[in-house]
Amino acid sequence: MNDTPAPFTEQDYAARMTRAARDASETGLAGLLITPGPDLVRLCGYRPTATTERLTLLVLTPGSEPRLLVPSLERPDAEAAPGADAVRVSDWRDGQDPYAAATGLLLPNGRYGVSDTTWALHLLGLQEALPLTTYRPLSLALPLLHAVKDDHEVARLAAAAAAADAAYEEILTARFTGRTESEVAADLAHLLREHGHSEVFTTVASGRNTANPHHRTGERTLKKGDSVILTFGGLKNDYSSHMTRTIHIGEPTPEEQTLHNTVRTAQQTAVASTAPGLTCQEIHRRARRVIEDAGYGEHTPDHTGHGIGITPHEPPHITEPEETFIVPGMCFSIDLGVYLPGRFGVAVGDVVACTRDGGRRLNSAAHGLTIVE
Amino acid sequence: MNDTPAPFTEQDYAARMTRAARDASETGLAGLLITPGPDLVRLCGYRPTATTERLTLLVLTPGSEPRLLVPSLERPDAEAAPGADAVRVSDWRDGQDPYAAATGLLLPNGRYGVSDTTWALHLLGLQEALPLTTYRPLSLALPLLHAVKDDHEVARLAAAAAAADAAYEEILTARFTGRTESEVAADLAHLLREHGHSEVFTTVASGRNTANPHHRTGERTLKKGDSVILTFGGLKNDYSSHMTRTIHIGEPTPEEQTLHNTVRTAQQTAVASTAPGLTCQEIHRRARRVIEDAGYGEHTPDHTGHGIGITPHEPPHITEPEETFIVPGMCFSIDLGVYLPGRFGVAVGDVVACTRDGGRRLNSAAHGLTIVE
Repeated sequence: MNDTPAPFTEQDYAARMTRAARDASETGLAGLLITPGPDLVRLCGYRPTATTERLTLLVLTPGSEPRLLVPSLERPDAEAAPGADAVRVSDWRDGQDPYAAATGLLLPNGRYGVSDTTWALHLLGLQEALPLTTYRPLSLALPLLHAVKDDHEVARLAAAAAAADAAYEEILTARFTGRTESEVAADLAHLLREHGHSEVFTTVASGRNTANPHHRTGERTLKKGDSVILTFGGLKNDYSSHMTRTIHIGEPTPEEQTLHNTVRTAQQTAVASTAPGLTCQEIHRRARRVIEDAGYGEHTPDHTGHGIGITPHEPPHITEPEETFIVPGMCFSIDLGVYLPGRFGVAVGDVVACTRDGGRRLNSAAHGLTIVE
Repeated sequence: MNDTPAPFTEQDYAARMTRAARDASETGLAGLLITPGPDLVRLCGYRPTATTERLTLLVLTPGSEPRLLVPSLERPDAEAAPGADAVRVSDWRDGQDPYAAATGLLLPNGRYGVSDTTWALHLLGLQEALPLTTYRPLSLALPLLHAVKDDHEVARLAAAAAAADAAYEEILTARFTGRTESEVAADLAHLLREHGHSEVFTTVASGRNTANPHHRTGERTLKKGDSVILTFGGLKNDYSSHMTRTIHIGEPTPEEQTLHNTVRTAQQTAVASTAPGLTCQEIHRRARRVIEDAGYGEHTPDHTGHGIGITPHEPPHITEPEETFIVPGMCFSIDLGVYLPGRFGVAVGDVVACTRDGGRRLNSAAHGLTIVE
């Protein structure tokens, strides 16, 4: 498959770090402290082979060169990272105090945003080495830090979405009748991996189980007349996919078809509403209105989607309380569903990127109520 | 294979938590705060399906019942944990402040030991909710927290060691000549998994590479006349294995055989020296003396082993600076090696448990310089 997205460049990483430092400054922070995990991978492309008790720390300070402090044994790995040319690397040796080494990179009384997943061991080490510094978790200090993607990131999300589309198209050719939800889920997981996903999630709800938006895939055997909701995705090349489709084994009833049309129209309304200058709240309201007007307002969840990127769920949330303005580069899922208690449900979802010209759907698989065997 | 160790009981967990709280008290701590990871699994048997931004916190206070605070959605999982009957579970709901919920379990001005891997998000939440509390990483506050194993834990380590032994015996029947280090390492990893390991590590050094104690398994092809050092292990039923053997393709030279005898004697001396009342330092010195007396003192590393349990490397370290007294229940590796620069090396290692009566070797595979094809 020729869907390999362009590699990230030194300029991509430099721009992300510059933007992050600027955002930090605008929030009143002296800078950002990033430790291994998705934050570090996205900002400078470095993924240590393991997250250990040895301190690895990216320090982003507005107006200064990004600094990456690593254990000396891991320096060659760090310098081989794709974003390494955009940072100045220094190291500390076993036997040295890594927090003392970090003090040279921090303001002694600065207030810093710090990765949520930074180990307490390291935070306590920094707090002891620099008692006047203060810290705030990044998810609270800068919830939108990763919300705006650059073009190469949108390409990664598009490639992940295309892989999810391909896995979906292939699962449609299989026989569903007589197999269990968990068998179908395992097949879909296998297909996602075949299409390049390194991590996957798959949920399959069938028959009456489709009425439960929190259904856990189980051992129910699928049979003719069932609705089936497939919710799936994962990570491909570090970026997430997330997709939902409702299919039907044999002919649907007129009511099932009608409900599907409603959900599909609501989902398409949200995608069509995605544009710079609108708020997340407004997109949510427009989609919800379609469902309310059709009389299903009581049976639809109070969220329309969520940001997606290096993680499968991140801000902004496409919900009533979220008044964040959509800007080009934001990418999120648009997942609409209606769940009729004790009867059946319908859900349809894609990943959408906001461009200057509006929403661009990254999934291309058809939305219709596909009939399978 | 009939090597399933006995399950841990409520009493096992209760005793571990009581001991941990007592150790905390003796160190001047108000208690211990444990978050998901190996600490939590060992102390109360609970392993959440994922480590997330939702606070899960075990609070151990000397003289009080252990308390486990969990997200309400995860309460059923927590209550199904094997140690759940030894803790009092409470929960917090989405929308509530989990740190406010935790304040009821902590002394407002207490000094607490906290899991090294606790997320900064959570530590900062606790620090904000209880500004007079102070914290110290568990690895610094109580380095020996997990050092003394109970009988059921020793049984787990013995089962992991037996599985490593079995994998080793099987790899010996394979052909080595003409295959690469990384092929042999992959086969050994496969065998460890077949024998029940859920995580594995395998290092293969051959020929001149055996002279490098930090060799990374590579693409060198093995040939007749090579020494081969196999270092391997992993996790089985949450407990670690760790084993080292030197084998030879075809007949060894007299010098190779002599060096192997020296290392083997040093290793056996350390195992035979393991007994309550001796220090780690003394065990290290006795083993080292054998190597020094044979004239190889310059070419042996300055460590003889390390504690092993739910992690592959933990205190106590069997080294010159470690004056910790050995007590029954401590389990550690005894790994001796001599590395002749530019020529070849020999290493032999087992896991050993200290009992009232002395050291009990948990590995049973032969130590001799086995000749393979």
